[in-house]
Amino acid sequence: MLHGELILVALGGNALMRRGEKGTYQEQYNNIVATSKHLADIVEQGYKLVITHGNGPQVGATLLRHAAGQKLYGIPAFPMDACGAETQGFIGYLIQQGLRTELKRRGLDKYVITVITRVLVDKDDPAFENPTKPVGPFYTREEMERIRQEYPHYVFVEDKARGGWRRVVPSPDPKLIAERVAIRNLVDAGFVVVASGGGGIPIIEEGYVAKGVEAVIDKDLAGERLAELIKADRFIILTDVEGAYINFGKPGQKLLREVTSSEARRYLESGEFGQGSMYPKVLACIRFVEAGGKEAIIAELSQLHQAMKGEAGTHFRLG
Amino acid sequence: MLHGELILVALGGNALMRRGEKGTYQEQYNNIVATSKHLADIVEQGYKLVITHGNGPQVGATLLRHAAGQKLYGIPAFPMDACGAETQGFIGYLIQQGLRTELKRRGLDKYVITVITRVLVDKDDPAFENPTKPVGPFYTREEMERIRQEYPHYVFVEDKARGGWRRVVPSPDPKLIAERVAIRNLVDAGFVVVASGGGGIPIIEEGYVAKGVEAVIDKDLAGERLAELIKADRFIILTDVEGAYINFGKPGQKLLREVTSSEARRYLESGEFGQGSMYPKVLACIRFVEAGGKEAIIAELSQLHQAMKGEAGTHFRLG
Repeated sequence: MLHGELILVALGGNALMRRGEKGTYQEQYNNIVATSKHLADIVEQGYKLVITHGNGPQVGATLLRHAAGQKLYGIPAFPMDACGAETQGFIGYLIQQGLRTELKRRGLDKYVITVITRVLVDKDDPAFENPTKPVGPFYTREEMERIRQEYPHYVFVEDKARGGWRRVVPSPDPKLIAERVAIRNLVDAGFVVVASGGGGIPIIEEGYVAKGVEAVIDKDLAGERLAELIKADRFIILTDVEGAYINFGKPGQKLLREVTSSEARRYLESGEFGQGSMYPKVLACIRFVEAGGKEAIIAELSQLHQAMKGEAGTHFRLG
Repeated sequence: MLHGELILVALGGNALMRRGEKGTYQEQYNNIVATSKHLADIVEQGYKLVITHGNGPQVGATLLRHAAGQKLYGIPAFPMDACGAETQGFIGYLIQQGLRTELKRRGLDKYVITVITRVLVDKDDPAFENPTKPVGPFYTREEMERIRQEYPHYVFVEDKARGGWRRVVPSPDPKLIAERVAIRNLVDAGFVVVASGGGGIPIIEEGYVAKGVEAVIDKDLAGERLAELIKADRFIILTDVEGAYINFGKPGQKLLREVTSSEARRYLESGEFGQGSMYPKVLACIRFVEAGGKEAIIAELSQLHQAMKGEAGTHFRLG
């Protein structure tokens, strides 16, 4: 990779919250401090950096806090778009604090700027008929049934692998990142930018009126759209596995090291990647290189450095 | 005022929530839609615009939601700085939606960008010993006592005029707006910017480490500091009264139409203005003109247009 290139990094849930944690402020802050060391390496090497991040556990917690506030104190609960905006503010702030501190420690006087980001979706997107995106914590069947008594319109699915139930909401495809020009502008002015957190706040447009909708956009697909629109050179998805595997969890399991977009699309169509986990990551990487991006990478968070040298992760190129 | 000048407007609580409202999303959105008509006038006339806003009722609601979430579902409650960041995300998003829609309706293709803003305070600020800033809803004595049983470190004061009790937290003086350069940059690139919401997220610096603190910075004082730092031409505080009065609520009550900074400082020192309401507004206006700003104005929200022509509100000039 070349000094001065623009890299968009999509942070997975594990950058903020780890399995078994309760999600305290201090835990999330500590995780961001650890993550910031990897991100600061990129900045120190002279790359321009835009960061996007997931918000699954955070927006789940926020939705429950709103429900609890209504129940206990009569404070009106907000819809999902407003809750998403709250998590963008919170997580953006955490990254600003953690990464700015790490940069300053290294003598780099760079500011990290969080832009509250809205993402336009199509109001006729079929996703609205078919909620698939898990949000919030895992519940036992009893907990799940208690919540459904209060919120009968909530839809839950069972995750047998992890032994629990999770709420699912629609996950429409991102069409346009509303704040793309401002984000690129800040990058050009030398800032590190946090944007499109949690996949962005989904909005639809009806004439000149923008309306928020109750949905969650996949953060990797939204990040990819942003990467395209701001003409990022590389798009890197950081997660808790080493990359994309074929035959995952089966005999012949194999990490893909280098893959062309057409190969990757064949694997995608043959059902190699789990819906809601690796599938959208691979799709996002394919879209990025097909749209003209130089390279897309899926890698484990702590292997970012090696992945950037081509020594770890799954690397996608057009072909 | 001159076309092309940069105006920083500080929106009071009534721009978002009105007396007697419950604070639903729809109410706050409707209020922002109404407020946006006034703000869009400024943009349509060719001024550059930065908006800051209060968050008193919103952060109060957020703190209670966190308390309720902890109690009902065991979700860890966040400290005040994180709650402030959440309200910046939410309110910024609302303003983006409402004002962008109003601008688009008028054929103005301008984007509104929210910058999550941290404000540096002095860790030795005497305010930390003496909490004075009201946050959240008004309570009856019984409600207040019930809350204090759960949160014994909360401090409440009685507001006899409005007949209720409110929580108060420390309100340190804003020293520096961390994200000032990015904000000015976005203004220069033609964006309307929402920044320093709720007075900004208060942080202290210890060496290279930035830490959030449990406090609320007065939004007018933080707005003034931002106006200074980004070299705004005018600083306008919009509120629910016509301007600054002397002998307020007494015989001889008189609206100040034009006032010099030295006159205003004399009134301030003689106790003309209520602590926590008009006092910080007048202080912010004095600071702005003393720091080289052309003019500061306190006006009623719906009179913004007349105030800009010098026909309403209280106008502060250096002298």
